[in-house]
This record gives sequence, structure tokens and C-alpha cells, in this order.
Amino acid sequence: MSDKDIKDSYDRSAQRMSGSTQTIAGKIHDSNDPSMHTDLHDKVTVNYENIEKSPDMEEVHKWQREHISKGDQTKEGFPMNVIIDPAMREMYQVVHSAGMTNVFDRFSQQQPIQCKFCMEGLSCQLCANGPCRISDKVPRGTCGVDAHTMVARNFMYRHVTIGTSANIFHCHQAARTLKAAGEHPESGLKIRDAEKLKKYADMAGLDANKPINELAVEFANWVMADIHSPFHIPSKAVEAFAPTRRKELWNKLGLFPGGGYSEIAFAQTQCMTNFNSDPVEFLLRSVRLGIANEYQGLFLLDIIQEILMGTQKIEMKKQNMGLLKENMVNIITNGHMPLLAHVALEMASTDEWQQKAKEAGAEGIQMLGHVCEGQQLINYDGTHNQKAYAGQEGEWLSEEYLFATGVIDLFMFDYNCTIPTLPVYAKRFGTKMLGTHPVIKLQGTETLDFVPEKMKEQAAKALNEAIDGFKARKAENRKVYIPKHVSDCMVGFSTESVREALGGSFKPLIDQIVNGNIRGIATIVGCTTARYGQGGSNIFKITQGLIKNNILVLSGGCTSSVMEYTGLTNPKAADECGEGLKAVCKQLGIPPVLTYGACVDIGKMTHTAKEIADALDVDTNMLPIVIGAPEYLEQKAVADACTAVALGWLVHVAPVPSITGSSVVVETLTHTTETLGLGKVVVEMDAEKTIQIYVDHIEKKRKELGLTT
Amino acid sequence: MSDKDIKDSYDRSAQRMSGSTQTIAGKIHDSNDPSMHTDLHDKVTVNYENIEKSPDMEEVHKWQREHISKGDQTKEGFPMNVIIDPAMREMYQVVHSAGMTNVFDRFSQQQPIQCKFCMEGLSCQLCANGPCRISDKVPRGTCGVDAHTMVARNFMYRHVTIGTSANIFHCHQAARTLKAAGEHPESGLKIRDAEKLKKYADMAGLDANKPINELAVEFANWVMADIHSPFHIPSKAVEAFAPTRRKELWNKLGLFPGGGYSEIAFAQTQCMTNFNSDPVEFLLRSVRLGIANEYQGLFLLDIIQEILMGTQKIEMKKQNMGLLKENMVNIITNGHMPLLAHVALEMASTDEWQQKAKEAGAEGIQMLGHVCEGQQLINYDGTHNQKAYAGQEGEWLSEEYLFATGVIDLFMFDYNCTIPTLPVYAKRFGTKMLGTHPVIKLQGTETLDFVPEKMKEQAAKALNEAIDGFKARKAENRKVYIPKHVSDCMVGFSTESVREALGGSFKPLIDQIVNGNIRGIATIVGCTTARYGQGGSNIFKITQGLIKNNILVLSGGCTSSVMEYTGLTNPKAADECGEGLKAVCKQLGIPPVLTYGACVDIGKMTHTAKEIADALDVDTNMLPIVIGAPEYLEQKAVADACTAVALGWLVHVAPVPSITGSSVVVETLTHTTETLGLGKVVVEMDAEKTIQIYVDHIEKKRKELGLTT
Repeated sequence: MSDKDIKDSYDRSAQRMSGSTQTIAGKIHDSNDPSMHTDLHDKVTVNYENIEKSPDMEEVHKWQREHISKGDQTKEGFPMNVIIDPAMREMYQVVHSAGMTNVFDRFSQQQPIQCKFCMEGLSCQLCANGPCRISDKVPRGTCGVDAHTMVARNFMYRHVTIGTSANIFHCHQAARTLKAAGEHPESGLKIRDAEKLKKYADMAGLDANKPINELAVEFANWVMADIHSPFHIPSKAVEAFAPTRRKELWNKLGLFPGGGYSEIAFAQTQCMTNFNSDPVEFLLRSVRLGIANEYQGLFLLDIIQEILMGTQKIEMKKQNMGLLKENMVNIITNGHMPLLAHVALEMASTDEWQQKAKEAGAEGIQMLGHVCEGQQLINYDGTHNQKAYAGQEGEWLSEEYLFATGVIDLFMFDYNCTIPTLPVYAKRFGTKMLGTHPVIKLQGTETLDFVPEKMKEQAAKALNEAIDGFKARKAENRKVYIPKHVSDCMVGFSTESVREALGGSFKPLIDQIVNGNIRGIATIVGCTTARYGQGGSNIFKITQGLIKNNILVLSGGCTSSVMEYTGLTNPKAADECGEGLKAVCKQLGIPPVLTYGACVDIGKMTHTAKEIADALDVDTNMLPIVIGAPEYLEQKAVADACTAVALGWLVHVAPVPSITGSSVVVETLTHTTETLGLGKVVVEMDAEKTIQIYVDHIEKKRKELGLTT
Repeated sequence: MSDKDIKDSYDRSAQRMSGSTQTIAGKIHDSNDPSMHTDLHDKVTVNYENIEKSPDMEEVHKWQREHISKGDQTKEGFPMNVIIDPAMREMYQVVHSAGMTNVFDRFSQQQPIQCKFCMEGLSCQLCANGPCRISDKVPRGTCGVDAHTMVARNFMYRHVTIGTSANIFHCHQAARTLKAAGEHPESGLKIRDAEKLKKYADMAGLDANKPINELAVEFANWVMADIHSPFHIPSKAVEAFAPTRRKELWNKLGLFPGGGYSEIAFAQTQCMTNFNSDPVEFLLRSVRLGIANEYQGLFLLDIIQEILMGTQKIEMKKQNMGLLKENMVNIITNGHMPLLAHVALEMASTDEWQQKAKEAGAEGIQMLGHVCEGQQLINYDGTHNQKAYAGQEGEWLSEEYLFATGVIDLFMFDYNCTIPTLPVYAKRFGTKMLGTHPVIKLQGTETLDFVPEKMKEQAAKALNEAIDGFKARKAENRKVYIPKHVSDCMVGFSTESVREALGGSFKPLIDQIVNGNIRGIATIVGCTTARYGQGGSNIFKITQGLIKNNILVLSGGCTSSVMEYTGLTNPKAADECGEGLKAVCKQLGIPPVLTYGACVDIGKMTHTAKEIADALDVDTNMLPIVIGAPEYLEQKAVADACTAVALGWLVHVAPVPSITGSSVVVETLTHTTETLGLGKVVVEMDAEKTIQIYVDHIEKKRKELGLTT
């Protein structure tokens, strides 16, 4: 691709893709789609009167800690006993009693019919001879596929290739945006961390002394070229940024990837019917994709987003629905890719736009981030200190309940997790929805083209729609309800901000690990699920146990929301730690859970781990570290688990992934990969046992490192 | 990517990928894989004595025609009544009576448990809240997904993205091979059709006057660059080769694709949990992928393979298991990508290698192509006239039965369709297996790296292994059984060979269409299935009906095998046509079914159609043509159907695809797309009704064209 090609394409391709199909989709839905008519709940009576209000946050935290005891997580008590977010608890009552479809109730409805074959990975729907199921009596599908190939193939094409695509695609869009920042100052985009750009451009082998805008363009092109190169050309990004000892191992094992998109097509091709039928090949291919997922996805997208939005800064900030204001224009931005949203946020922070909101009768205009996008905006230096920034909103499970407050004037979304029922809720509660990339379209909602060069213009459109939404809400005198809960939390942790807080080097942290005050590090990352005993509870219970055992926790994704609404990201939580960790936290004034931000900020955690490994001069698999995804939900989490296996780490996952139908797949992922120098997976649903697994692994690694205290 | 990068990568990346994982896979299988031990049938007694032998081909054809009457296709009579290939019928008896696992018996075993939810597309296994099923009582999955989004998303990620990946990946490998042909004369590769290279390089905007080897490299790089460019840069291949009116429509509808691999990653990203939830977007995205599938896949891979192996030439050739020879070294090459195989074939045709075979005690060495690879080798001018070439072997369903002859000394394979049980059969019958691209690995079999520069060396290795296999077979005095059946068939049809046969222009064919002797054209393409009433029978019945109705049939894929073993590609079949088509066939000395070769040769059929449309100066959707896949099996067939919809054609498919759970998806694909100027899909299982649908559509199109006779 030439630069001119890319530039020329913006106006044409993006415009075509979104504008036209939008019309067509609209046309077809109008005539055909029964679902848009059957559950709109237009006439559902929503009652805000009988909500059982939660006490203040201190009482909530006390209740959470008492409530979460092991025996309290029974199916019988569902769903109220697994909702530990106090705001969500209140709004669930509104939605449930109104009979509206909602995520916790839907999970219950699915329970009697969850299919055993599908749960074990033993069902295949790839070809027209099927669907086929494998059992003891019928050990092969029609084509002849056995349990092992079926399970491994399902694992790769349903989870790994999709998750890897999503992370690399995200990085690709971030690179397009960085390029626009360099080429189009009128776009509203800025280079906020020029030093970071220079550092990584230099590592990429580029001339970092160029004017910063030129360098931005060149680095963005370098990233895009690597993503788009063939699988048989070793990735330059992996070469530039991965740990040296890992690269040697990956080369030895044939796992060093080429261009990510070409790798994905390779893997997808293998998933054809009657194609690859070696289960181990599928699993090792998944690890290879995990490496591309990291170095052409997470790692680089984090760096690019920091260049654009500012590297993290440690500060106290606020979270939860209590931040919504009845008399403000309330904008929620949702997803994982706040490329347009951060421009809108800066614009909304100007006097000009605050004034516009006032002219519409509001006290002002405020933006809150939801899901991982919220964790990003609350962490970046360039966003969390903007005037219009109001805080983090919640995790993905709370989206429908959030809409039910009736106070959201605009819901912007750019990526997952944006759930399919939101248009139904938007219609019922008068919320305007706006998609900001054609990659995600929701039935009957407006989608903007992704044109980074025009983000200022698009941001203005979004803000105007929000103000119009506010005016309509007021004109119709709509009833609203805002749960009062707000959490105080310390945010903004990253490789750089942690190092800075430690005085410029990781040595003080390493010293605490060596002297045993901190036994090791666990990352508790990823999603929350609606499963019984989960919904945040599993995350909370495990984290409590880890900090009691003097294990420092890094969080990212919806797990960070859980840490925030349970008080674990508040420095006060130091009191809940074991003695060693408590002393460190008190000394530094930090909480025992350091939120690194979004699920995609796992790229920053691997970065921190690499720096610690480098400081110790050991391979990454030697570190006393465990990667945990105790409530993993979707495909990016699976791809990220493959990344962690590539880096040599123990990865704990729950719920049980759909691989149990194959002994080969289970044995390979939970044992054999470790014998090759890679990491391995451990599956455990019980929180107490999980904590012990982490502790044992960390103590084993300490021993291997020669740490005897 | 630079040329040097690609070159440098060959030795490193390919070698790493295949060599090492092979070892690892081997290691893991040895210790873990129970399936490799449980059904090896080592001790199964195979009895060649009691086979009920079929009569000669004339009698077989008579039996097929009597037998295939509608009422004869009942479940009760299965499976014998759906196996109409006489050689497969004989070998089925051997395999079935020995109790060995085989495709027809496995289909029967799956029948009592085929899942209704999976059949309708109403089961989702993407996230850890699931699996979820949708029914009238439970209309949404846990995330909130409705039936329409679930069905459309399943359709795209299970079928379309995988099929598109496979066709574009194939084209990518062909381009790598063409490049090696230009750069490495020592590779055994040749530029056999220089004129074709010049023609398409010129259309691509390259300087066609360059030395031919340089031009090969430049054209190959141009193809690879287009495949690897970002989705937001309009594809140069589509721009260069698609019909002008279609390009205008695709632009208008937002369907003009960019680089294929980037498009696939875009589509895969949309399939994330809680991402895109607009069903129509998934379907139009599938059509967009269908365009990339054609112009960065089928169309270009066909051209490149013809440049390397010679454009088709119409000749009489032979098909079926009777071509195997007990005292010859028998090599079967299987798949869709005879890039290494055609080098091996040329080498095996030399006196040197024939002599080596003789020294091993054989009468010589012969190669037969199986599945689509067989249809390619039987059609290319540069392969079907090689001395060691012995004919086409059969369709994908016959693989296990072919192994059971005991006479195959080497089974090479490079792509789909290579079924998972073959290693089991290989072990039982002493057949050596050799994979020729790391993209396909089978449990416990050897895989060669894909290194086009070293194909001569690799081909020699394959031939040596075949000779060793022969020696072992003779040394062990293994029993063999060869069914005697051989079909005579006319092959080698393509855009160029048909035009040449018509005297240099399509006018004579168009005249016959205009005067009504030929009413129109139907392509009967794709796979065969093991379903009741199929196994080739549906293809055969429909084709008989079409030619009786004076519709000229083009075939490609396993359908061509069916046409061959039922006598329909023999000029004698003219007698079975309606009067108009009969007269044309007799005059030209051709059969009423023109085999274009493999399923991937659909790219040639669209090419022919484009030339006819150009000659008529109409858009492709105006042609009196129907695309039929009456026994479609896998994902490439679904991607190809999307191509046909993009080109404006009626596409008939059977069996019923897993989309019936959504009225929106069904309505969109079977109706709405046509209102947009695209084609549409029709699903029909009954052969008689299918014939009428084709006839009606063709007559409607004739009317629209103003053809009144």
C-alpha cells in the first residue's frame, strides 16, 4: 500500500461502506424484522418507586464482604445474590419487575437447555453433512473427524481467530488515527506523548529525529505494513518488541508469526471441512496467533492510544451511576476504542460547548466512559483531567440497567462490548445511539464512517445529538432515576506511571518481591459473566484471597469495574492485605489492586512484566506471576490467554472453556505446552482452590528463582 | 513487503513452521492421543472375495438411469442406493463388511442425533455465558442476541470467512509459486502459458513487454500486494477484472472490497460477542467477501495455475479406479492445489524415473489425481498429456474406499478435501501419506514445507517414497483389489478452449442461445454429500433434467466426477438431450456437460459468463444462467455462492443451509438481494422441482433479454 492509496481511500471506501448499507439495512428491517417489533416494551410500565435502595458505599462494602462468603452463591438465590454492584442491584429491580428482557434473567432462561455437546466442544456445524455430535457411541463426525480435532478446531475458529482479528483490527484503526493526527492537525487529534512515539519509533528502526508529525505518519505506516504483511515474512513488530529469549523459543518451535491478517487467513483456511486434522497443530497455531495478538494488537494499540491520549497518570477518580446528573447532558461512550470519543471529550470540555448545553437548559455537558472505554478514559492523562470528563460508569453487564435510568442523552459506541438489546432499551427510554465505526452496526441505529481526518466534525455532530437528546428528555418530562452510588478509586497505573511512582526504576518493587513482602504478582483481567456464582463475585473473592496472601494484583477490563465498586482500588484496601503487602501499600499510598485500565491494556501488563524480567535478566516464564481471567467471557480473552501461554505464564480461566470433550486438547493446554517452555492453562471454578493454585505457582516460581524468604 | 523479505522468509519461516511442530505434534500424539490407537483396524479382516461386481460401463450407465428414479431414494435402502459410482459401490462392500469406519456409515450413525437448533442456525457457542439456543419460548441468547443476528453471524463466521480465506490463501500460494517460476528456473516450475501471463499482466497495468520471467515475478507481487492491502483501499484486482456495470453497483451498495485478508479480519471482528448485531450487515458483508473471494481468489488462482500448468485443451480422457494398476507404482495426488504435484508429474514422466520404478520391480510409475486436484490435472494441457499421467480418480466421498484397494503406494495431499480418517486407512493398507503444505497436517503423517523454489527436490522425495511404498507392498505380498470400471470422458473446457472450439468467438454459442436451440446455461458445481438422496444422485438427476430441457451444463468440482462416472461428459450423452441441445452437441461433437474442472474453476465459469455478457453488451445479471450447487458441502461453496449473488445470479443450493431459524436472513438472501440488483439464493431439495426452477428462471431471463423464440 502506498500512502496516497490509503489517503485516497478514506473518503471513498469508508463512506460507501457505512452510508449505503445503513440505508439498505434500514429498508430491510422496516419490512422484515419481527424482532424489532416484538420486544420493544413501549408500553411496559417502569416503576422507580419501589426500589430497595442500597446504603452508602461504606455500608455497601461491608455488605459485599459479608455477602460474598462461599455458601451464599447458590443457584436458588439468583440473580440478586450475584449482583454486587450496588447501582446495578437497584436498577435490576426496575428492569426485572417491569418484565423487560435483561442479561441476568436471560441467563436463567437459557439454563434448562444448555447443550452438553456444545459445552464440551463436541458439536460441529461446519458442513452440510452435519451438524454432527461426538459421543462414546458415535466417536466420529460424518467426515471422520474425531473428538480431538473437532474440539481443537472449534476452539481456534470460534474463539482464537476472532479474538486475534479484533485486537489486531483495533490496532490497525489506532494506527490510521495516529497517521491522521500527523497529517491533519485540523482533525482535532493530537500527539500527546511525543517521547513515547520517539521511543517506539526508534525501537522500530525509524529515524526518531524527524519532525514529530512526520514520525507519527511513518510509525503508523510501519505498524500497518507489519499487520498487512504475508505470514511467511517474520513480523517486524515481534522482532522489535518481544523479549529476546522468547523470540528464540518461538523460532525453535515454529511459532514466530508473520503479518497478523495473513496469519488469521492461514488459520481460518485450516478450519475448512476436511482440511487440517491434527489437533496439536490447531493449538500451537493458536499460540502463534497469540503472539501476533500481542505484538500486532494489544501492545502496539496501547502504545498508539497513549501517544494520542497521554500516558497514564496515577490519580484518585470516581466510578458508578451516581455520577450521572439529571440536569446535565449525559453522554456515555462505550467500547474499547475511544478514538473519536476522546476528541469529543476534549471538545465538550470547551466553554463553547458547555455554553451550548446551557443554552439548551442544562447545567452543562458531561461524558462518562462505560465498559473498557471507561477504564481507558479514566486512566489516560489526556482524558481523565478534561473538564467534561465525569468518571467511569460500569461493566458490560450493567448496560441495560444503565439505560433504564432514563437519563442517558447519547450512547456512543465503537467496539465490543455493546449488547444487542440496547436499541430496544434506547427506544423505550428515549436514548439516542450513535455507532462510530462501520465494523459495529446495531439494528436501526445510526453509524458514522470511520474517518479520523474528520473527527472534529464528527465529534461536533455527536455533541449536537446529545444536546438534542437532552432537550427531548426535558420537553417530554421523562421520569429518571439515578442510583446514588459513587466509588472513589485510585487509577492510572501503567508501566511508566508505576516506575515513576517507584522513583524511576522497578528496583524498589523487585526488592519487595525479593524480601518476600510481596510474594508475586497476579493479573486479574478480562470480563465478568452472568453465570451463577460469577457476575463479579468470583473476581472479588479471588482478589481478596490474593491480597491476603501478599500477592499484588493488576486488573484490566471489566475486572477493574469490580475492583472499583468493591473498594479494592482504594488505598484503604491496604487494610485487607497480608502484613507484607499492607506495609508496601501503606508506604507508597497505593491500593493492593492497581488498575491498568481496559482488557486491551493487558498489553501494558506484559510490558511491565517484560521490564521486570529484563531487570532480573531472566526469561518471562521465570517470573512469580499468574494471569487470571476468573470470569472470562469472549474471544479476545481467549486470544489473550494464548498470548500468555506464548509468554510462558500460568493462565487461570473460569468458566470452563468448551474443550473438555478432548483429552488431547486438555492435556496439551494444561500440561504439554509447559514442557515446551511455553505457559499452560489451569481451569478452576472454586475461588478458594483458585487462590491456592496462584499461591502455589508463585511460591514454586520464587523457589526456581532462588528466593528463599 | 519487499521482494527480499519474501525471499528471505522462505527458508526460515516455512522450515520453522512445519519442521518443528511436526516433531511436537508427534511427541504429543505418541503419549496422549487415544484416537490413534482405538480405531486403527489393524486386525480387521478385509475380504475381497465376496464383492458383488458391477457390469461393464454401458450396463452401469443403464442401471444408473433406471435406478435413479425418484421413488428409489429412500432412507430404507441406504446407503447402497445412493452410491452410483460403480467402483465406490464395490469398495463400499469391502469396507462396510469389514466393519471399518467409513463416510456413508458415519452419516447414518449421526442421524438419530442431528440437532434441530444447530440445523436452523439457532445455537451459539461464541462466549462463556453460552452455549445458548433460541426458541419461541426463549427468543434471545444471554447477551441479548436475537434469532436473526445469531443465524446471520453463524452463517458468516462458520462458512463465509473460512471459505473466502481458503480461496484467497490458495491464490496467495499460487502467486508465490509463479514468482518462484520466474526467479528460480531450477525449481522445476515453468511458465507454460506466457500469452495468458502477458494478457492479465497488461490488464493489471503492468508492462507486458518485459522478459517473461520478470513479468511473472511482477504479476505475482501485484497479486500478493492486492491480497495483503488494507480493507479501506479498493482492490486493484477487482478494479482490473470485474465487469464494469457490476463495479458501479458494488460501489453504490458499499460492497467494493479492499485487500482480502484485511476484509476477512474486519468480518471476523464483527463476529465477536456483543459486537455487530445487524443481521443484514452480516449478509451484505458476506456478499462483499464473495467479491474478494472471486477476484483475489478463484479468478486469479485459475489464471495463475493455467500460466503454470497450461490452459485447458479439449480431449478424451479416462476416469475411475480401474485406472489403478497392480504392477505399477500408483501415486494419488489429492486436494485443490497441484503446485508441487504437477512438478512431480512431469518428473515421473521422464525415462529416468520410469526406469527407477522398473528397477524396483514395477512396470512403471503413474500418477492419478483425486477430487478437484484430479479435475485440474485432467484438464490442463501441461498435465493431462504427460506420460505418467493416468487419469482422474474420483470424488471426495470415495477416499476411504480408494485406500481399501490396497494398491496406492503414495497419497500426496495439499489442500481440502482430505478426510481425517485417512491415516487410519493408511496404516491398515500400508499407504504412505505425504502432506505438501503446512496448512494441512494430518495426525501422524509427514508434512513438507511449502517452498516453491525447491519443488524439484521435493518432487524427487515424493517419487522416491512412492517407489519405496511399491517395494514394501510387493515385499509383503499385500492383497489388492482393483474395481475394473473406467469412464471415457471429454474434458478440458474453459473460456479459451470453448471459444477456440467455436472458431474464435462466442458468437456461435450466443446464436444458439438466441435461436433457442440452447435455452440457457446452468453451472452444476461444488461437492457431493453423504446425505440420503444425495451422494451424487441429486446432481445426476438434475443434470439429466436440464439437458432434456436444452440447457447446457458446465460442471466443476466433485460434480464433474459424477458427470464422468455417469457418462454425461461423453459426447454420446447428446442422445439424452432435448432436440435443440442434441443438435448442437452432435454438430460440435461435444457432450451436453462441459467439465471446467475443479470447484475452484468456478472462476473460469464466471470468466466465460463475463465474456458472453460483454459480447451481448449486458450486465452479468441479465444472462439466462443459473448457478447450482445441488450437493454443496463446505465453506468454499458458501463463499462461492456469495460470489454468484454479487454477480447477480440465481444460486440454487441443497441441502438446506443452516439459516432457516431467521425469517430476516431467509428473506434477505432469497428475495431482497435481488431487488438491489444482486442475485439471490433458492433452496430446493426435490430434483424435479429444482429442474423447473432453473427452467423458469432461464425463460424469465430470455424474456427480459427480448428472446422470443
